[in-house]
Amino acid sequence: MKRAVYPGTFDPVTYGHIDIIKRAAKIFDELIVLVAVHKGKKTLFPIRKRKEMLEESIRHIKNAKVEIYEGLVAEYIKKNNILAMIRGMRAVSDFEFEFQMALMNRHMFPGLEILFLFPDEQYTYLTSSIIKEIASFGGDISPFVPPLVNENIKRIFHKQEE
Amino acid sequence: MKRAVYPGTFDPVTYGHIDIIKRAAKIFDELIVLVAVHKGKKTLFPIRKRKEMLEESIRHIKNAKVEIYEGLVAEYIKKNNILAMIRGMRAVSDFEFEFQMALMNRHMFPGLEILFLFPDEQYTYLTSSIIKEIASFGGDISPFVPPLVNENIKRIFHKQEE
Amino acid sequence: MKRAVYPGTFDPVTYGHIDIIKRAAKIFDELIVLVAVHKGKKTLFPIRKRKEMLEESIRHIKNAKVEIYEGLVAEYIKKNNILAMIRGMRAVSDFEFEFQMALMNRHMFPGLEILFLFPDEQYTYLTSSIIKEIASFGGDISPFVPPLVNENIKRIFHKQEE
Amino acid sequence: MKRAVYPGTFDPVTYGHIDIIKRAAKIFDELIVLVAVHKGKKTLFPIRKRKEMLEESIRHIKNAKVEIYEGLVAEYIKKNNILAMIRGMRAVSDFEFEFQMALMNRHMFPGLEILFLFPDEQYTYLTSSIIKEIASFGGDISPFVPPLVNENIKRIFHKQEE
Amino acid sequence: MKRAVYPGTFDPVTYGHIDIIKRAAKIFDELIVLVAVHKGKKTLFPIRKRKEMLEESIRHIKNAKVEIYEGLVAEYIKKNNILAMIRGMRAVSDFEFEFQMALMNRHMFPGLEILFLFPDEQYTYLTSSIIKEIASFGGDISPFVPPLVNENIKRIFHKQEE
Amino acid sequence: MKRAVYPGTFDPVTYGHIDIIKRAAKIFDELIVLVAVHKGKKTLFPIRKRKEMLEESIRHIKNAKVEIYEGLVAEYIKKNNILAMIRGMRAVSDFEFEFQMALMNRHMFPGLEILFLFPDEQYTYLTSSIIKEIASFGGDISPFVPPLVNENIKRIFHKQEE
Repeated sequence: MKRAVYPGTFDPVTYGHIDIIKRAAKIFDELIVLVAVHKGKKTLFPIRKRKEMLEESIRHIKNAKVEIYEGLVAEYIKKNNILAMIRGMRAVSDFEFEFQMALMNRHMFPGLEILFLFPDEQYTYLTSSIIKEIASFGGDISPFVPPLVNENIKRIFHKQEE
Repeated sequence: MKRAVYPGTFDPVTYGHIDIIKRAAKIFDELIVLVAVHKGKKTLFPIRKRKEMLEESIRHIKNAKVEIYEGLVAEYIKKNNILAMIRGMRAVSDFEFEFQMALMNRHMFPGLEILFLFPDEQYTYLTSSIIKEIASFGGDISPFVPPLVNENIKRIFHKQEE
Repeated sequence: MKRAVYPGTFDPVTYGHIDIIKRAAKIFDELIVLVAVHKGKKTLFPIRKRKEMLEESIRHIKNAKVEIYEGLVAEYIKKNNILAMIRGMRAVSDFEFEFQMALMNRHMFPGLEILFLFPDEQYTYLTSSIIKEIASFGGDISPFVPPLVNENIKRIFHKQEE
Repeated sequence: MKRAVYPGTFDPVTYGHIDIIKRAAKIFDELIVLVAVHKGKKTLFPIRKRKEMLEESIRHIKNAKVEIYEGLVAEYIKKNNILAMIRGMRAVSDFEFEFQMALMNRHMFPGLEILFLFPDEQYTYLTSSIIKEIASFGGDISPFVPPLVNENIKRIFHKQEE
Repeated sequence: MKRAVYPGTFDPVTYGHIDIIKRAAKIFDELIVLVAVHKGKKTLFPIRKRKEMLEESIRHIKNAKVEIYEGLVAEYIKKNNILAMIRGMRAVSDFEFEFQMALMNRHMFPGLEILFLFPDEQYTYLTSSIIKEIASFGGDISPFVPPLVNENIKRIFHKQEE
Repeated sequence: MKRAVYPGTFDPVTYGHIDIIKRAAKIFDELIVLVAVHKGKKTLFPIRKRKEMLEESIRHIKNAKVEIYEGLVAEYIKKNNILAMIRGMRAVSDFEFEFQMALMNRHMFPGLEILFLFPDEQYTYLTSSIIKEIASFGGDISPFVPPLVNENIKRIFHKQEE
């Protein structure tokens, strides 16, 4: 069975992430979406919530599942017999960082394949950070995230204003 | 009347910003320099002070005025019948970010035009961040910012050292 | 009267070019689309044909007109009292080249403003070269160019195959 | 059966290409290496020779085969029920071009997945063009290409000098 | 005597830095590795510790020495009769930032030469930040840093977990 | 004695090249400017003429000399006991290509150091190609090249017009 992992922070999941997940699930027998812990990086949603929103959003993709992992992605891959790591790519600045991380991960686990997928062009400009900035000003983010995520974000920024 | 907006943090205004303002004011009938609030981003100067320094620095450009806006730039543009948004561009890293923001803003307000202007080549390396770093070490920033800004920055870093 | 020039080879004009022309024509009182001669660079269409296809394609944009110029763009600008030069921008590699040309043109004509516009995101990947490559293999280019251009290109590649 | 295609000019095949082929063959059930005809682009080796050298070089990769195709890659993919197109990526300049081509190919064949793989870091700097330039000066290219390719290139440049 | 300076944060020193130091020391008569204070930027190691680890790691390079400096690098250079400033370069994103800093530093000290060196390709992906992230998850960083640095980092992250 | 080589096509030499030569000559005891033969690349000036114009232009830089070499630069370096190779850098696109060439050259000659220097910012946009394009339209290139080069280029393009 050919398995791949798609690691990320997903704070929160956007339609751009879901597009990548759909594409990767067509290629592999099983896809594990790995919600990663970033020590010292503050997130808007706690990790359980990020996982829950992801699960709800990709329920229709049968061969994809969501997991939380607290260690190095490279070690998860070694332990779980993963063939490849998936990365979405949007822009040159992504490319640079991804290139460095790819070389570093291969150095730590030489057998690993790293695959880059392009999202649909309508998602080229989508990032979780931009979503959060728009929402913080009360802008409409419903075209960019699943309904459940939209509600959760609105609840957070509504509370802050009270 | 053809109106454009030039949004930014201006923390503080530099000769690079003023160069862009002069160029944009030649093209449009009216130019609004919009001092934006960035929730959660700490600035060296409070927003009133940033606006005041801008007004002082561009007093000689008759068809430009300064305003403060607390919401999404895209909404200011919709409400005020603005034809175009001005951005200064200095480097490839600017380009990447600007490209994403441009596509996102157009998505939110399809009629909007986004214009990129190049500053004079002597300002290619000028950023508000570099100015603040140099000043924090007691370096001379008078070639890069208007006299009023220079005095204000010196006062801040002088206080910190006492 | 505020006039701008949009120079290019237009070999042939694509929907991406027309998108930029429409945007620029909204900002300026008059827009001159300048078909440039490139000594030593072989084009698919002769310059008269490139001009003719452009004129046909932008007939509906009332304040835009097409001209041929055989010298340096910077000199055309000086002689004709032009306020700004328009450039379309698609990608980082464009940016680099455009940046060098912009600085060089300003050096030769310091009063010139250079404005960069983003085309609609569906045209981000469109270039005249890709169009010609697709057509050379008999691919369908009707979604990318005006009908007249499509017919003219087909005629050329059809002839080559006989 | 999951099939992918890896198109290229392969003029000539290098160890960098072979590295990508090995990686892609691990992920898919079948990999077709597609030697593409580039009208108007002069190659060092005729297409039959390029195919022959490729076949010899990847004989040990059981689920990979080599084919020649004269039309648009997008059409080959449609006709042959291919799931994905493989691209190797080395540098930012690659990325730009690949990004444009990827969006264009998806436009022509929306179901297509495009996967980017990184070669081993020792091949980051390898291109067929650099190989040919070194060989043209009599430099040793044996660390970069299979023995058969090395012999064939030497024969060509030796002849030219006589 | 031709002297150069190699400024940085070195939090902590990696084999990538040492590679650059070795290369620069071959070119100049004396090389000063300058550990810079970054006001407001939190470091993992205090400046004395960073200096100590550097000294230990480059003891075998006879014409290199380590110093701490709290002001602007450009002023250190002016006062100490330095011919050139050394920078390591790894990626395009580095390049952008370095380009801006280089132009800014030259503006402040016109006589200064800025030299960019490429590290060995095996160090292309190495940054102090990646090292710290790997170590924070308990990953093995011994292939990337000198033994003394490895021990010191392990001690820090071990403490945090208790 | 510390010797460096600065290879290039120099078709023709510009003030940007001369700026790099001056900077490199301050750092090394001897600098060899190497006019390289590019098989198959058509130049405006024959190699003897390119060398002659270079020699005339840098006569005042006492520790620099000009040589012609017809083989691989890496081999010249090995035979002549050269410590470093100098490259000028202007833009990101340069960087990419230079990075690949640097890694390739180091592979062929591991002891070689490759140094990148930034020209003065007024030369950032200068390339021999742009110079030739301007001159081909009768534009004034005297601010960009030494008087002797200016005369020679004018003579060539004047002849072509007769």
